[in-house]
Amino acid sequence: MTLKLYHAEPAANSLKSLIPLKEKALDFESVYVDLHKFEQHEAWFTALNPEGQVPVLDHDGFIVTHTTVINEYLEDAFPYAPPLRPNEPKGNARMRFWNKFVDEHVMNYVSMHGWHRMVGVLARGIESGEFEKMVARIPLHEQREKWRTARSGFSEADLANATRKIEVAVDKVEEQLGRTNWLAGEIYTLADINLFAHLGFALARMFPEIGTRERCPRFLDWVERVRARPAVQAALNMPDHTNPALRTFTGHAR
Amino acid sequence: MTLKLYHAEPAANSLKSLIPLKEKALDFESVYVDLHKFEQHEAWFTALNPEGQVPVLDHDGFIVTHTTVINEYLEDAFPYAPPLRPNEPKGNARMRFWNKFVDEHVMNYVSMHGWHRMVGVLARGIESGEFEKMVARIPLHEQREKWRTARSGFSEADLANATRKIEVAVDKVEEQLGRTNWLAGEIYTLADINLFAHLGFALARMFPEIGTRERCPRFLDWVERVRARPAVQAALNMPDHTNPALRTFTGHAR
Repeated sequence: MTLKLYHAEPAANSLKSLIPLKEKALDFESVYVDLHKFEQHEAWFTALNPEGQVPVLDHDGFIVTHTTVINEYLEDAFPYAPPLRPNEPKGNARMRFWNKFVDEHVMNYVSMHGWHRMVGVLARGIESGEFEKMVARIPLHEQREKWRTARSGFSEADLANATRKIEVAVDKVEEQLGRTNWLAGEIYTLADINLFAHLGFALARMFPEIGTRERCPRFLDWVERVRARPAVQAALNMPDHTNPALRTFTGHAR
Repeated sequence: MTLKLYHAEPAANSLKSLIPLKEKALDFESVYVDLHKFEQHEAWFTALNPEGQVPVLDHDGFIVTHTTVINEYLEDAFPYAPPLRPNEPKGNARMRFWNKFVDEHVMNYVSMHGWHRMVGVLARGIESGEFEKMVARIPLHEQREKWRTARSGFSEADLANATRKIEVAVDKVEEQLGRTNWLAGEIYTLADINLFAHLGFALARMFPEIGTRERCPRFLDWVERVRARPAVQAALNMPDHTNPALRTFTGHAR
């Protein structure tokens, strides 16, 4: 059995699939894809994932893309490794409700702020002819548009809407954590991992004005409970090749 | 055991959860929610689903919302009824990949054209004070915005982008159906039901210039294979209370 994960830095989507592999203690080969060099748009990579996006799971040649799909695949394929899905109807439904919420109402909005702060700086650093050549290699229309917008600058209205979405999400999660210990009930699941990877681990750094003790004490406590898990530590300690000059913009050096 | 589905006309989201109930031959109570009267925003309904959206599944008091979640819940809760999920790791991953694609890249774009043609007419027919009162009762910010935009009119750019998304989807499905009989492989799954309910059943009516024999013969053949299933027929024959004057705008009388 060979399991490979093609991934970038331990943040967002890449972190989201690294954590389950560590939690389930599955042996896997880590293949680092350098997003700074746009390796995800190169032919060898788009042969694996025509969408040109990380992460990608390769299980004995079977390719799985999209983190929510990858993570449920690991549950289906390795049921004997420590489960991260309730595996009973109600718990699964609650987990999938929250996964869907994070995928559709959180991820892209946090991402916009990340791109605004970091990718915009990268994109503006590329000479315009080179930039258009790079963009032309991106398979997904939406990603091409996102790069162009990152270069010209996201609108204030879009950034304000993204902030609003994050506020709604934080308040919704805070309310849920008043009723249950974890997002989907009394056990830690893929839904917690999803929210942690896309928002939780970066909340205090990226949105200190939202992630306050007054507004969301339970959310902040939950972040620390997730972060303290050995598997999560192991995932967060995977190599980070982010250009140090750009870490300011991810909030690491804020 | 009591199973209830709160739903509207057999189209889009409501159709998407009616079909699995019929396919699995599960006894359920159908509770019609009249969207023309905005019953989905009334207190009795938002007590069930705080988001104020149909359909909602009530299984012995356990409430499930969001059709993709509802449909996997039915698989988990009634594994002995005819399955609509492969229930092996690879097949499940393929099914979830397509479900995610339809949920995130198809549904809202077909919906925009539907709202443009039908809900816009409805919305402009409401006196402005009444309209603002109705909108104020809508729980979700996004739905309030959608109603306001439907009344003032979707932009040409947004409608053109929605058309582009539908073209991409049709071509992607056409390509897939050249390799497998059904979306997720050799068996009919929730992914086929999802695509049929959101795009397939209405393609020829709503987008005749896209759904041509030249462009997508396999897609059109697939639509007829899904439509011919007795369970799909039964779902499509559920009562349709759409204001007949508005059917022009759904393309029924195009």
